[in-house]
Amino acid sequence: MPGPLVGIVLGSKSDLFVGKKAAESLAELGIPYEITVASAHRTPEDVVAYARKAQDRGLIVLIGVAGLSAALPGVLAAHSSLPVIGVPVSSGTLGGEDALFAVTQMPPGIPVGSVGIDGAKNAALLAARILALMDPNILGRLKTQSATASEKIRTDRKDLDGLPTAPEEAF
Amino acid sequence: MPGPLVGIVLGSKSDLFVGKKAAESLAELGIPYEITVASAHRTPEDVVAYARKAQDRGLIVLIGVAGLSAALPGVLAAHSSLPVIGVPVSSGTLGGEDALFAVTQMPPGIPVGSVGIDGAKNAALLAARILALMDPNILGRLKTQSATASEKIRTDRKDLDGLPTAPEEAF
Amino acid sequence: MPGPLVGIVLGSKSDLFVGKKAAESLAELGIPYEITVASAHRTPEDVVAYARKAQDRGLIVLIGVAGLSAALPGVLAAHSSLPVIGVPVSSGTLGGEDALFAVTQMPPGIPVGSVGIDGAKNAALLAARILALMDPNILGRLKTQSATASEKIRTDRKDLDGLPTAPEEAF
Amino acid sequence: MPGPLVGIVLGSKSDLFVGKKAAESLAELGIPYEITVASAHRTPEDVVAYARKAQDRGLIVLIGVAGLSAALPGVLAAHSSLPVIGVPVSSGTLGGEDALFAVTQMPPGIPVGSVGIDGAKNAALLAARILALMDPNILGRLKTQSATASEKIRTDRKDLDGLPTAPEEAF
Amino acid sequence: MPGPLVGIVLGSKSDLFVGKKAAESLAELGIPYEITVASAHRTPEDVVAYARKAQDRGLIVLIGVAGLSAALPGVLAAHSSLPVIGVPVSSGTLGGEDALFAVTQMPPGIPVGSVGIDGAKNAALLAARILALMDPNILGRLKTQSATASEKIRTDRKDLDGLPTAPEEAF
Amino acid sequence: MPGPLVGIVLGSKSDLFVGKKAAESLAELGIPYEITVASAHRTPEDVVAYARKAQDRGLIVLIGVAGLSAALPGVLAAHSSLPVIGVPVSSGTLGGEDALFAVTQMPPGIPVGSVGIDGAKNAALLAARILALMDPNILGRLKTQSATASEKIRTDRKDLDGLPTAPEEAF
Amino acid sequence: MPGPLVGIVLGSKSDLFVGKKAAESLAELGIPYEITVASAHRTPEDVVAYARKAQDRGLIVLIGVAGLSAALPGVLAAHSSLPVIGVPVSSGTLGGEDALFAVTQMPPGIPVGSVGIDGAKNAALLAARILALMDPNILGRLKTQSATASEKIRTDRKDLDGLPTAPEEAF
Amino acid sequence: MPGPLVGIVLGSKSDLFVGKKAAESLAELGIPYEITVASAHRTPEDVVAYARKAQDRGLIVLIGVAGLSAALPGVLAAHSSLPVIGVPVSSGTLGGEDALFAVTQMPPGIPVGSVGIDGAKNAALLAARILALMDPNILGRLKTQSATASEKIRTDRKDLDGLPTAPEEAF
Repeated sequence: MPGPLVGIVLGSKSDLFVGKKAAESLAELGIPYEITVASAHRTPEDVVAYARKAQDRGLIVLIGVAGLSAALPGVLAAHSSLPVIGVPVSSGTLGGEDALFAVTQMPPGIPVGSVGIDGAKNAALLAARILALMDPNILGRLKTQSATASEKIRTDRKDLDGLPTAPEEAF
Repeated sequence: MPGPLVGIVLGSKSDLFVGKKAAESLAELGIPYEITVASAHRTPEDVVAYARKAQDRGLIVLIGVAGLSAALPGVLAAHSSLPVIGVPVSSGTLGGEDALFAVTQMPPGIPVGSVGIDGAKNAALLAARILALMDPNILGRLKTQSATASEKIRTDRKDLDGLPTAPEEAF
Repeated sequence: MPGPLVGIVLGSKSDLFVGKKAAESLAELGIPYEITVASAHRTPEDVVAYARKAQDRGLIVLIGVAGLSAALPGVLAAHSSLPVIGVPVSSGTLGGEDALFAVTQMPPGIPVGSVGIDGAKNAALLAARILALMDPNILGRLKTQSATASEKIRTDRKDLDGLPTAPEEAF
Repeated sequence: MPGPLVGIVLGSKSDLFVGKKAAESLAELGIPYEITVASAHRTPEDVVAYARKAQDRGLIVLIGVAGLSAALPGVLAAHSSLPVIGVPVSSGTLGGEDALFAVTQMPPGIPVGSVGIDGAKNAALLAARILALMDPNILGRLKTQSATASEKIRTDRKDLDGLPTAPEEAF
Repeated sequence: MPGPLVGIVLGSKSDLFVGKKAAESLAELGIPYEITVASAHRTPEDVVAYARKAQDRGLIVLIGVAGLSAALPGVLAAHSSLPVIGVPVSSGTLGGEDALFAVTQMPPGIPVGSVGIDGAKNAALLAARILALMDPNILGRLKTQSATASEKIRTDRKDLDGLPTAPEEAF
Repeated sequence: MPGPLVGIVLGSKSDLFVGKKAAESLAELGIPYEITVASAHRTPEDVVAYARKAQDRGLIVLIGVAGLSAALPGVLAAHSSLPVIGVPVSSGTLGGEDALFAVTQMPPGIPVGSVGIDGAKNAALLAARILALMDPNILGRLKTQSATASEKIRTDRKDLDGLPTAPEEAF
Repeated sequence: MPGPLVGIVLGSKSDLFVGKKAAESLAELGIPYEITVASAHRTPEDVVAYARKAQDRGLIVLIGVAGLSAALPGVLAAHSSLPVIGVPVSSGTLGGEDALFAVTQMPPGIPVGSVGIDGAKNAALLAARILALMDPNILGRLKTQSATASEKIRTDRKDLDGLPTAPEEAF
Repeated sequence: MPGPLVGIVLGSKSDLFVGKKAAESLAELGIPYEITVASAHRTPEDVVAYARKAQDRGLIVLIGVAGLSAALPGVLAAHSSLPVIGVPVSSGTLGGEDALFAVTQMPPGIPVGSVGIDGAKNAALLAARILALMDPNILGRLKTQSATASEKIRTDRKDLDGLPTAPEEAF
């Protein structure tokens, strides 16, 4: 049985409500992953060790999930050469604007690819796109899932609380 | 001679001052790329066509560079299964906060990995990390470049306008 | 029976709580409309097709309702020559500031007229004003409705929880 | 010779640098317009009179251009039944965020369609789209202009400071 | 019995929860006032008439209470020479930042004195300070109320959920 | 010769470029004033003393001009019963948003009437409106000045860089 | 029994829900403290007196806890030479952004060290670090507490709602 | 000759224009310091080593100066028990709001005391206040400097571009 390809790291257990969305999306795509908690500020050595060992342990993409002064994704990126995806979390009272700035505004040299606030599902999908470069099965599942999502929208539009909807031939 | 692996798409020629930083970084890493202009709003068919053909043309990562209501990275991601990196540009009068929101706050299902405002160098490095998963030469060059950058900082600290600096043994 | 004159497009079924306000306002004014769901990111072809066919199908004004990185109104405007009204939605954790920026900050060349966050009623009224240019009945109903709204305020001011109110002659 | 169809109202002569862009765009499209200055705060009676007389004077669309606490577009909309387009101006020290909020966040009942900060060209184009509903010549010129703009982008992409560009067949 | 000295104008009946705080504060200070509803956008003639007649009717200070694109205080100030105090209301999804900008960022020539978001009590107190310039009784009551408020804080500090508090001699 | 009626207090000499606008406006209206520097943070005793003595010294309105964490207007209001007007200054890198919040968001009990960022002219006009309650000469000058300002706008609109302007009868 | 070393000052009793977190953290570290209420605006003399007497009373660090236009920490710093830590509180409708700006953006000369919004626990810890410079017992307890906190995270990561977690050897 | 008591760490040599202000302030107070460059992201091991060795090397306070996603102060605090002061820098296009959030919004457990954007002088003064707890000479110099600063303001107010100033007895 294959080891995990994606490592999801939460800055705090309280970020699990966001991180879980990444886990579920990866599971739906049949991508092995692991999820853990390691704080860039409270257990920095663990984050560093995790990032350094990640590639040798077979991980291919890292996802850092953190709120407030969300340093975690940047620390992962500083100690690994793997692609790192950041998920800013809306903890705190600023709606996650603080975390969004912290995850995106990295200095030149240390790249993090940030998704939107609480956008862990998209983090999983971006990881899947990267993995799909090397695994056509994942690519196939991504395309299927994407088609299903589009179909869902087409079904959604058939009944909108009884309001007059646009006909099929409008599209 | 190998074809381009990274496609840099500018939403407007006026974004070239940012996009050029991605181009230069990729060139330094010996990664073949191409750069073009295609507006999600003014030439949407071109963006769609570019995104759809990208994989068959051999591109592996797409970088969308755009300001204001920066829809370009999202449109690239909607029409391709390749990993897409977004670069919000500080055009306009809001310092790029508008573009940062537009690039990051994608709906679930369409992933874009955003770097910071005007952060095109990091977009190139994130692309390189993805390519390095499949090409150890790029990984090697990334590590060399990273080491050089660290060394630069160590040199920088030796003379700070004649102020008393920390000794070697402080580190 | 006349076909719809206004097309309301929701970026997601979850935007219906906002879009419904536009629908109700149009119904009150006796303006035939249709409402649908089509995501600029998840069903981009549908949005494009809808926009392209709109004029031939008899639509005169398009209203795009979307949250987060709200690209929908801009895509409608890019693929149609009809006037497009955008309604930013307060989904997400930023109170709709992200959607407001995305709807308004369009590049030169692709016009969208944005109302306020969740302001779908005003989107309907702006559509009605445009239609009223060609239909004096709608103009008449708009003026009646406006007069009724003003009267409502004049009634409102007669009793304010028993506090001392301003007399009629104050106005 | 036909009278003006679009009335551009500046809240202050200092907004002319923005309003002029609307004027030039209308002129390019062969749409007769007039431009004036009338402050919602300093000459409110003039704004009211202008809005009230506009329809009888033959105007079809009003464009209000204002910065700071930009009340002008709303006042135009409150005193006329014509469609009103607002242009928030980046005067002041907040980059126009104040004006953007003021123009968009209208109460239910008084619709203003706002373009982006300093986005007067798009205001002109939105006015033109409305006029094009009644005048196929304008529609034709809009389509021509749009095609020219798209072509401009296709030309722009041919030379990007000598960097390697995408080939024709990429689109 | 004296007529009202302060006129509180709400932009909408829904602003009463804020305006009521001004009313209560004025009542506590024995200052006669009136409260009404008049929308700068939906009943602009009423606002203009109210502002114009205010001085002749014996009003000395006007308080405008409004949310969103809060034009009301500015319109009152444009049509009267009385001092006008603005109260931005936190209606809408932006926490009142929109109304705060709209009330404060007036163009030169039309002064409004703004209190904080939902800060109607302070609007009443500022009105009272102005009235106190002409009425020593009000000044006396203001000073008494202020002393009571200070005393309240001194009482508050005596018991803080049983935590160790600072002794009297610390002050 | 009468003593000053308005006291303008700058938090720092570097705020003089803003405070001077208040001084000039008061001078134009023939209102005696004085201007000084006293920092709420660096010379707090001076601010307290100034506020406490102000009324006895014949001052009627205080204007506090300050940037950053602009505590000055609030401290003036805490130590005097006179009406206090605050002017947030755009020093610092946030465009004065910090000062705007600091001046407006006072706790209940301590009223400050804030004008816009760098809006010292309006502070002078608000002070003049308060003084005009007690001095019909000032009221007369305010009305004259206001009429002149309106006339200025009417002149401004006669020539707008040669663009087609609205005719007299439009108003 | 030793007197308090840290003085926690709340701007209002309503800030107790935040200030209590500082109290509890100090108590856990065995650091004697006192907590009180003194408003920079409503009882300014008390704040001044408290700050002036603090050092002679044996206090070593002051913590000011306040919301809105949070002047309290700055006033403490202006009247004492002790280190002052500020805690911005999320009262009001802006999520505490107003208080954060007010606490941090002090003019040069009056230093306040601000923690995050509602971040009273960190204020206590920063106070403890300062005290630990002079008391190895406190340093020891800080290190123990820090180690416990790190251990807590390591325990947290062992069970994450049954999702596949990272193994011990990943760190 | 005594070793440095304060360590100023810049996240990048480009932050020197800010860090230098801290250095100069410390020098004026006769406090030995050292200044260095160590990036939390590009030379993380150096930052960790520096923080860990700091106390043994005799440093008593650390000052971290950084812009954008300013993780440096937090990393210093995570690896040392010394008090850490953060200085957010206004590099980038957001005026330093990103850095301010990153420096202040630390998770519970890792305290950083932040001064204002580019506020390095206050960082030095806060460090000096901490040192003054253990060194009455520094306390004395702080008081002298503070008195000089106050005197400077009193001199400043004597001539304000020839405008009428407040007399001595106003204070």
